[in-house]
Amino acid sequence: MRDPRYDILFEPVQIGPVRTRNRFYQVPHCNGMGHVHPSAMARMRAIKAEGGWGVVCTEECEISPLSEFSPYIEARLWDKRDIPALARMCDAVHRHGSLAGVELAFNGYSAPNRTSREIPWAPSNTPVRGYDPVQARAMSRADIKQLRELHRAAALRARDAGFDIIYVYAGHDLGLPFHFLTQRNNRRTDEYGGALFNRVRLLRELIEDTRDAVGDRCAVAVRLAVDEQQGCAGLTRDSEGVEVFSMLAELPDLWDINVADWANDSVTSRFAPEGYQEAFLTGLKALTSKPVVGVGRFTSPDTMASLVRRGVLDLIGAARPSIADPFLPNKIDQGRTDEIRECIGCNVCVSGDHTSTPMRCTQNPTMGEEWRRGWHPEQVPVRRAEGRALVIGAGPAGLECARVLGARGLEVMLAEATRTLGGRVASESRLPGLASWSRVVDYRVDALSRLGNVEIYRESRLEVQDVLDIEASHVFVATGSRWRNDGLGRVLRQPLPGLENLPVFTPDDVMAGAVLPSPVVVFDDDHYYMGSVLAESLIARGVEVLYVTPAADVAPWTHNTLEQHRIQRRLLELDVTIITSHALCSLTPYGVQAACTYTGRPRFIPAAGVLLVTSREPEQGLFDALQAESRGVQQVIQIGDCLAPGTIAAAVYSGHRFAREFDAPPGLLRMRRELVALEDWPAP
Amino acid sequence: MRDPRYDILFEPVQIGPVRTRNRFYQVPHCNGMGHVHPSAMARMRAIKAEGGWGVVCTEECEISPLSEFSPYIEARLWDKRDIPALARMCDAVHRHGSLAGVELAFNGYSAPNRTSREIPWAPSNTPVRGYDPVQARAMSRADIKQLRELHRAAALRARDAGFDIIYVYAGHDLGLPFHFLTQRNNRRTDEYGGALFNRVRLLRELIEDTRDAVGDRCAVAVRLAVDEQQGCAGLTRDSEGVEVFSMLAELPDLWDINVADWANDSVTSRFAPEGYQEAFLTGLKALTSKPVVGVGRFTSPDTMASLVRRGVLDLIGAARPSIADPFLPNKIDQGRTDEIRECIGCNVCVSGDHTSTPMRCTQNPTMGEEWRRGWHPEQVPVRRAEGRALVIGAGPAGLECARVLGARGLEVMLAEATRTLGGRVASESRLPGLASWSRVVDYRVDALSRLGNVEIYRESRLEVQDVLDIEASHVFVATGSRWRNDGLGRVLRQPLPGLENLPVFTPDDVMAGAVLPSPVVVFDDDHYYMGSVLAESLIARGVEVLYVTPAADVAPWTHNTLEQHRIQRRLLELDVTIITSHALCSLTPYGVQAACTYTGRPRFIPAAGVLLVTSREPEQGLFDALQAESRGVQQVIQIGDCLAPGTIAAAVYSGHRFAREFDAPPGLLRMRRELVALEDWPAP
Repeated sequence: MRDPRYDILFEPVQIGPVRTRNRFYQVPHCNGMGHVHPSAMARMRAIKAEGGWGVVCTEECEISPLSEFSPYIEARLWDKRDIPALARMCDAVHRHGSLAGVELAFNGYSAPNRTSREIPWAPSNTPVRGYDPVQARAMSRADIKQLRELHRAAALRARDAGFDIIYVYAGHDLGLPFHFLTQRNNRRTDEYGGALFNRVRLLRELIEDTRDAVGDRCAVAVRLAVDEQQGCAGLTRDSEGVEVFSMLAELPDLWDINVADWANDSVTSRFAPEGYQEAFLTGLKALTSKPVVGVGRFTSPDTMASLVRRGVLDLIGAARPSIADPFLPNKIDQGRTDEIRECIGCNVCVSGDHTSTPMRCTQNPTMGEEWRRGWHPEQVPVRRAEGRALVIGAGPAGLECARVLGARGLEVMLAEATRTLGGRVASESRLPGLASWSRVVDYRVDALSRLGNVEIYRESRLEVQDVLDIEASHVFVATGSRWRNDGLGRVLRQPLPGLENLPVFTPDDVMAGAVLPSPVVVFDDDHYYMGSVLAESLIARGVEVLYVTPAADVAPWTHNTLEQHRIQRRLLELDVTIITSHALCSLTPYGVQAACTYTGRPRFIPAAGVLLVTSREPEQGLFDALQAESRGVQQVIQIGDCLAPGTIAAAVYSGHRFAREFDAPPGLLRMRRELVALEDWPAP
Repeated sequence: MRDPRYDILFEPVQIGPVRTRNRFYQVPHCNGMGHVHPSAMARMRAIKAEGGWGVVCTEECEISPLSEFSPYIEARLWDKRDIPALARMCDAVHRHGSLAGVELAFNGYSAPNRTSREIPWAPSNTPVRGYDPVQARAMSRADIKQLRELHRAAALRARDAGFDIIYVYAGHDLGLPFHFLTQRNNRRTDEYGGALFNRVRLLRELIEDTRDAVGDRCAVAVRLAVDEQQGCAGLTRDSEGVEVFSMLAELPDLWDINVADWANDSVTSRFAPEGYQEAFLTGLKALTSKPVVGVGRFTSPDTMASLVRRGVLDLIGAARPSIADPFLPNKIDQGRTDEIRECIGCNVCVSGDHTSTPMRCTQNPTMGEEWRRGWHPEQVPVRRAEGRALVIGAGPAGLECARVLGARGLEVMLAEATRTLGGRVASESRLPGLASWSRVVDYRVDALSRLGNVEIYRESRLEVQDVLDIEASHVFVATGSRWRNDGLGRVLRQPLPGLENLPVFTPDDVMAGAVLPSPVVVFDDDHYYMGSVLAESLIARGVEVLYVTPAADVAPWTHNTLEQHRIQRRLLELDVTIITSHALCSLTPYGVQAACTYTGRPRFIPAAGVLLVTSREPEQGLFDALQAESRGVQQVIQIGDCLAPGTIAAAVYSGHRFAREFDAPPGLLRMRRELVALEDWPAP
């Protein structure tokens, strides 16, 4: 079944004392579960092993309270009490024939130690990363000795938990060994500072210590950022990056290479294509005999095979593609490459880590639900309900709902009012930078085409009587939402005064091709991507844009997707006038009256029109009418944006959940959860 | 021993079916421990009961995953599995003769349900509070019925856990019943919307439900915000606030009255004095026969007694004062009012909740450490070490260190280089709005004066030989830090070019009375209070200020202390020019060259001088010299800012910790912690 062109991807690779069965390598990635949801984390990793990833790694793993990452939720190996939770992951991964890796991490000035209250360590005195009022202190030689002992002890615990690959972490400008490497962080004058040979010393020692401690049984991997993409202010591949690699080339058993910081490593599809890190990887393999793994949001098996053939990589690293499709390797192996659920590069997954809550995925609605709801990405329960299902609306919720209902064995009719499948995704993926988002539709339309029991009806706008005439037992209403045209949102709680004075547009209007006057005020009280994407779109059409937001920066929620800096930079480079910390008060014939969110001071902004990006109103008319008239229909269920407008991820999740659960006995719907054990009491 | 003027504070008060032994009432307050650190939370509450608070309440307590507050860490009563953790608190509070209260909370659109992924509920469709891309949906009648059932079931669980007082939460614009009250949130047209009588309905029903469920054994309290301090955009006391109160006056057993939102309820001392909520409380007691509790950062027993005598309050509510001094009631009772450790109103405590980590307190370094380190706010272990202790430097770390060493029974010499005790606190408390911070010094100097075994030497700058001559066994170096004058900090990792071109000042210079030229650029890469406070100070001296920050807003860390909005508003109202998202590149004779942090685009800012508020350098000279020359000294230990510059809270904590632990056997130093239990496995 497998295409022979991809055979190379299924060759085993020796990594020090261990051997992986194929070249698919899930690099360490955070997930918002970590030590707070250890069973959930273990189950999520196990499913990746089941899906064919030859190596499955943890997220960052704290080795000591001297560098703990709260409130971020990562793995933890502070002492032996932490071993059982991670042993659970190792056992589950091994059961599927895969190797388990752990990224031991000590993050120095990148971790303010909010919980442990310990003083962070750094090569030199420095404030911590971020805004915490905490300074890290320069490590003494005794501190360096202690760090090495902590790292060695953690490596032994990791081995005892069952890990096959143990990392020394010098990536993302997060791991302390990386801080020692970089001149801007390292102002030391002792044998750990100055010349590169000295700045590399700590990393070298940690690799040696780890090999010495566990090298007989475990592979030692190094995750190294070879470039920081900040020019001479940071490490660059061609200055010191390659040199560091060369100096240590044969020391570890495996090189995991990327770029720093995290926002440069995990760029969204809006800002970088698949394979965007190749330029940083090329040539490194020639400098070492050890296997090299790298990433680049790879979802194409052709690209993967080419990278191995061309000698760029030995192992195909993936974080996001393995989240979107834990079964990507098996699908390639089984000749089902067109069934791959490709990552769209939206970084909603990253927002889990940033908000200290379990990760979700736009493409894979089972992500984070594997343990607590018992969901599997490739298996759905056989239907319990009898009768036909009707899904009204083929947006992301409706498509996913129909797909899951069909897979569960129901007869499904999917009715779409327009000629186009995809709903909001079809519209939004035509906006600047968002083309990859169409994969949400592509995957589902393709899956539906394989199901003989699902019929799709386009250009079929249904009224109440039509629905009743169809006589479906289960009706899922997925009619979506529309952007409000009156300004209601977070800041404005009453319609904007003067709506009649100035041409007013909504994102729906722009996506439908409306011609806007120039200059136009874009009022962004949505704070995610839409305001800035539409601003880009308007500029491309020659419209002058004045961007007004009540927030302090453009699209602040996109800090959680690692995009905020890129978004605001792009608008500034397009010469958009950005007016922060202002809300609209009223519209006049000559422009908008705004006010400072701090002082209330008025500010008039001349404009020929206004685009309101504030909030959405669910399209509930059909549902409400059906509620009143539900003769013959067993169930009418709202899903997706027409239940409550949210992200595309939330819409897919909603469609998936209701399709899975609409016929479940109530007892089965309980979400499992993990509780803190009550410890010794009272205090000593 | 007790002053008879305060007898009134120790009268018992009947609250429905329960009776509190005195008028000291710890109102619900968050703490960053909650369900993640349940033993730590219980022990912290127990110590307040031990210290004399007649009522001790939880933080907000989630009643269902339909409204969960992640990543904020609050209490949890989703189902009966959560009862044991809270029963632990109740038992511990009861053991000291106090009542335990629980604030059941369902927060509607204020909680985006990041973990549970449930759609938030609201009176009307609305985006959630904050920037999450989530909209709450208008509750149906069935939803309202379900909410009432959830609340009733949680009340029963709370009773079973042992709580004496059970809250219906309508405070802070957080609790959903409050959202129903307010016109801007409630656009309903059914019997829960429109006239105030309708908007009050849900609150009334929840009170009635709770009384019906548990009223025989538990008191039912209502926490109500009677004013939102946003004029006609929100609820005001004189329009609908008093009316709501009147409509429900006799329904609950207790009224807990405050103002919304939280930033208006818990104002820092920089922006409001003790008792600032009295205007909102006055007159309410006359409208009800039920007891009323209110807050106002009360630390003066005279103020408290007056509030009761004048009929403003029946119970003296406190969150922050009970954190700073859990033994405040006992100290009043025992005639030790001058030993009260008064809250300084800095809101460092609030930052625990905002950063999802255990709360700390500037005045009370044992806060958050009661269980995990076994620390008690009023008890320290008897010394194990022999010999004299020398503490060098009488800043916050040195004062606290000397106090604890003295209380532990060591002979202590405290040497201060200047005439003034308090170090940085003495200087900073003279800055605009920070006068209350001097309480950090006052409390400790007073405590030291009571200890016969501590001698204080002012104007005693010690050199190495002086230290050796003193022949102390244990030397604690608390020499503090100085602000850097070269710009090094978060953004600048090399000294600022052109330092010789323009007069350069540091915060130390300004606090020492330096005369600055006008206009001056204040470059704030510190991001806490110092930059904005100094700007205020300079303006008061007639200097024109241009405030430059690489952040998107002024003093962003003060979001965590509920101050950011007030700080930026104040600077704007003082006509400070605020230039955000810019970093300094170099100094010229005519001003500063800055660059946009997004694009790098240059911007020249004409100025006659620059004040660099970036980072601090520890004063480690004496310590380093002693390290090299430690003949006769058993131990030389750095504490406070000279170990690593941080907050005053961190300095006090550092002094306290080393004084407690310097002579402890290593085994005793292990921090206890609470782990997640491993649940059923594998998934069903």
